[in-house]
Amino acid sequence: MGYFEILKKDSNSKARTGKITTSRNVIFTPVFMPVGTKATVKAVLNEQLNEMGCEIILSNLYHLYLSPGIEIIEKAGGLHNFSNWGKSILTDSGGFQVFSLSDTRKVLEDGVEFRSIIDGSIHFFTPEKVVQMQIKIDSDIMMVLDECSSFDAPERVITDAAKRTLKWARLSVREFKKHENINSKLFGIIQGGFNKNLRKYCAEAISNMEFSGIALGGLSVGEKREQTIEMIDYTVGYIDNKKPLYVMGLGDPIGILEAINCGVDMFDCVLPTRISRTGSAFTKFGKINLRNAKFTDDFSPVDESCNCYTCRSYSKAYIKHLYKSREILSSILLSIHNLYFIFNLVKDARNAISNNNFVSFKNEFLKNYKTDTF
Amino acid sequence: MGYFEILKKDSNSKARTGKITTSRNVIFTPVFMPVGTKATVKAVLNEQLNEMGCEIILSNLYHLYLSPGIEIIEKAGGLHNFSNWGKSILTDSGGFQVFSLSDTRKVLEDGVEFRSIIDGSIHFFTPEKVVQMQIKIDSDIMMVLDECSSFDAPERVITDAAKRTLKWARLSVREFKKHENINSKLFGIIQGGFNKNLRKYCAEAISNMEFSGIALGGLSVGEKREQTIEMIDYTVGYIDNKKPLYVMGLGDPIGILEAINCGVDMFDCVLPTRISRTGSAFTKFGKINLRNAKFTDDFSPVDESCNCYTCRSYSKAYIKHLYKSREILSSILLSIHNLYFIFNLVKDARNAISNNNFVSFKNEFLKNYKTDTF
Repeated sequence: MGYFEILKKDSNSKARTGKITTSRNVIFTPVFMPVGTKATVKAVLNEQLNEMGCEIILSNLYHLYLSPGIEIIEKAGGLHNFSNWGKSILTDSGGFQVFSLSDTRKVLEDGVEFRSIIDGSIHFFTPEKVVQMQIKIDSDIMMVLDECSSFDAPERVITDAAKRTLKWARLSVREFKKHENINSKLFGIIQGGFNKNLRKYCAEAISNMEFSGIALGGLSVGEKREQTIEMIDYTVGYIDNKKPLYVMGLGDPIGILEAINCGVDMFDCVLPTRISRTGSAFTKFGKINLRNAKFTDDFSPVDESCNCYTCRSYSKAYIKHLYKSREILSSILLSIHNLYFIFNLVKDARNAISNNNFVSFKNEFLKNYKTDTF
Repeated sequence: MGYFEILKKDSNSKARTGKITTSRNVIFTPVFMPVGTKATVKAVLNEQLNEMGCEIILSNLYHLYLSPGIEIIEKAGGLHNFSNWGKSILTDSGGFQVFSLSDTRKVLEDGVEFRSIIDGSIHFFTPEKVVQMQIKIDSDIMMVLDECSSFDAPERVITDAAKRTLKWARLSVREFKKHENINSKLFGIIQGGFNKNLRKYCAEAISNMEFSGIALGGLSVGEKREQTIEMIDYTVGYIDNKKPLYVMGLGDPIGILEAINCGVDMFDCVLPTRISRTGSAFTKFGKINLRNAKFTDDFSPVDESCNCYTCRSYSKAYIKHLYKSREILSSILLSIHNLYFIFNLVKDARNAISNNNFVSFKNEFLKNYKTDTF
C-alpha cells in the first residue's frame, strides 16, 4: 500500500474516497483541512480539532518564515512540537501570500523578492529554499513555490506565471530529491488562470513530475463558482488521478460538494473560522448571521440538527449576545460549530461515496442549502 | 448546617476555611470567583473552569441589564440556562459600574440615574429594583446597590455615600423579604472609604442587618496595597464573623494571601483574565510578560511547577509567537494558566489553613513571589 490509496469510486460521478498515510496518521479523503496560518487554527484548541475528527491542518510557510522565523521552529523541534499538534500538517509555500500580501515584489527567473508585511525588510524565496525550509520545520505535505496571478491578469502575465511555476516545480523536485530519510511529501501546483489550454498543459506537465500529490492553484480568486467548478472539472481530465488532488483555498459547503463531484480529494479554506469572527454560522438551510435582530430571543441552537459542542450547549440568543458584546467566546463557539459543520459535511460525503449514492446526497444537501455568495 | 459553615480557624492568623452551600453546589472558602461580567469569563469555556475546580463565577447586573437585558435572560430561564453554567453565580449590583463607567449620573435619595454606556439612554436603579432584577435572572448570591466613591473623594462625599449605602441596604433587605421561595441570598456591602470610624460604623450596621454575607466595597480603587490590607484588617474587627466575608475586586496573588490572613473568605478580580489579554502570566516567582524578547526561544512552559493545561502542553516561545501574531489562542492559553494559578494558590491556602500552617505557607510564597505593582 502506497502513500495514497483509492478506496472507492462513485459510479455516477468522479467522486472517490481514499486514504493518505503520512508518517503521523491516516487521513481519509475527501478531507477538509482547517487553516492554521500562523501555527494555530484561529480561536480553537487542538483538543477541539481532535474531537471533531480533524486529521490534518494547513499552515503557511510565508507567515511562519516572517514570524516567529524558521530557526525558532527548527529549534522547537519542528512545527508539530512548536504548536503541540501531533497529526499531519500541510504547509503552503507562501507563493499565494507573496503575491497577495506584498505591495512590492519582484519576480525573477530563479525566485521572488518581496518585502515583509511586518517590518518592510527585503526577502528572497527560491523554489529550492522553500523546499529546504519546509523540510526544516518538518512539514508532512509541502507545496512547491508557485507564481499566482490575479483573476483579471492579462493573458501574457498568466502564461508567463504558469510557465515559471512549471520551471520552479522541476527545480523543487530536484531539490527535494537531494534530501534523504525525510517523511515530508512534495505536492506540485497547477496554475494557468482560466485558460483551458494552459491548464491542460500544466496539468500534464505537473502529472509527469515526481510529486506525491497535485494541487490546483489560482482558483477561488474572485471568479464565479460556475467558472471554478468548470475549470476543476476540465483540468481533472488531464491529471494523473492516481495521486491525491487538492484544490487550494476552496471551502464553502457548495463548492466542496461540487469539487468532490469532480474528483477532488483535499480542501482548505479560512472560511469556517473567518466567518465565525463576524458572527456567521453554517446551517443545513444556509448561512445565517447571528447579528440579525430576530435571534435576540431565539433560544434554539445554531443548527437544530447539529451535534457539535456549541449546538449541544448554547443558544443563538446567547451567542448573539456574546458577539454584540465583542466577547472572545463568540469566536470560539462559532469556530467550533462552523468547522464541525464542514467536517461533518465532508464525512457525510465520504460515506455517501462509499454507499455509491454521492450524487443524491449532494442534490439533497443543495436542495436545502440556500445559495449564498461565497 | 446553615448556609455558611466555618470548618477550621488558623491559630496564628485570622485565616479560616469554610463552606457555602447554595442551591447549586458547595463552595469551599477561601474562594476565588473569576469575573464573567457579561455572562462569560473572557476567553475560557465553562468546561475549562470546571476542570480548574471553579465553583462560582461573578457576573454583573449593570452590564447584563444594558445588554442583552433582564427580560431576555428571564426568558432564557435565568442566567445559568442562558450561559450554560450550572454552578453558582454571584451577581454584582452594578453600583460600582454606575459610578465608574457612566460620565453622567445623578444620585438621588432613592436610587441612581445614569446613562447607558451603549446608547446614551437614561436609566434608574433603585435598591429595590436591583434586588428584583437579580431574583429574575436567578442569581445565587446578590449584592445590594451601593454608592461607591473614588479614592480621592472629599470626606463629605464619602460620608454621604456610606450613609446612603446603609439606607439602601435596609431597603434592599426589606425588598428581599417580600420574595418567598427563592434560593438567592443577599449580601450587604460596607463602604466608608479610608475613614476608619466610618468603616467601623458601616461594618456594625451591615452586620446587624439580615444579610447572608458581608462584602467590603470601595477597596482596590487606587490606594497602596498596605492601605487596602490595613483597612480590611481593621474592619474585620467589627464584622459579624459568622457570615462569609467578601472583598470586592481584589485578586492579585499577594493581596489574596494578605486578605485571607485577615479572615477574608471570598474574592473576585478581572486581573487573571485581563493580564492574559496583554501577554502576562503569573508564575511562582512573580508576573512575567511574554512580549519580552528573552522568551522568543524559551521552549519551557510559563511556570515549570504549574500543572495547568497550558503549561502541560505549550511553551513560552509558542505563546509569545501567538501573542505577537495577535492570535486569539494566546488569550485563551494565558487565561487558562492565570486562572489556574489563582485557583491553585487559593486551594493551597485552604489546605495550609486546614493544616494550621497558613502563615508559613504565605511567607514561603511571598519570599519567592517578586512584588509587582498591581
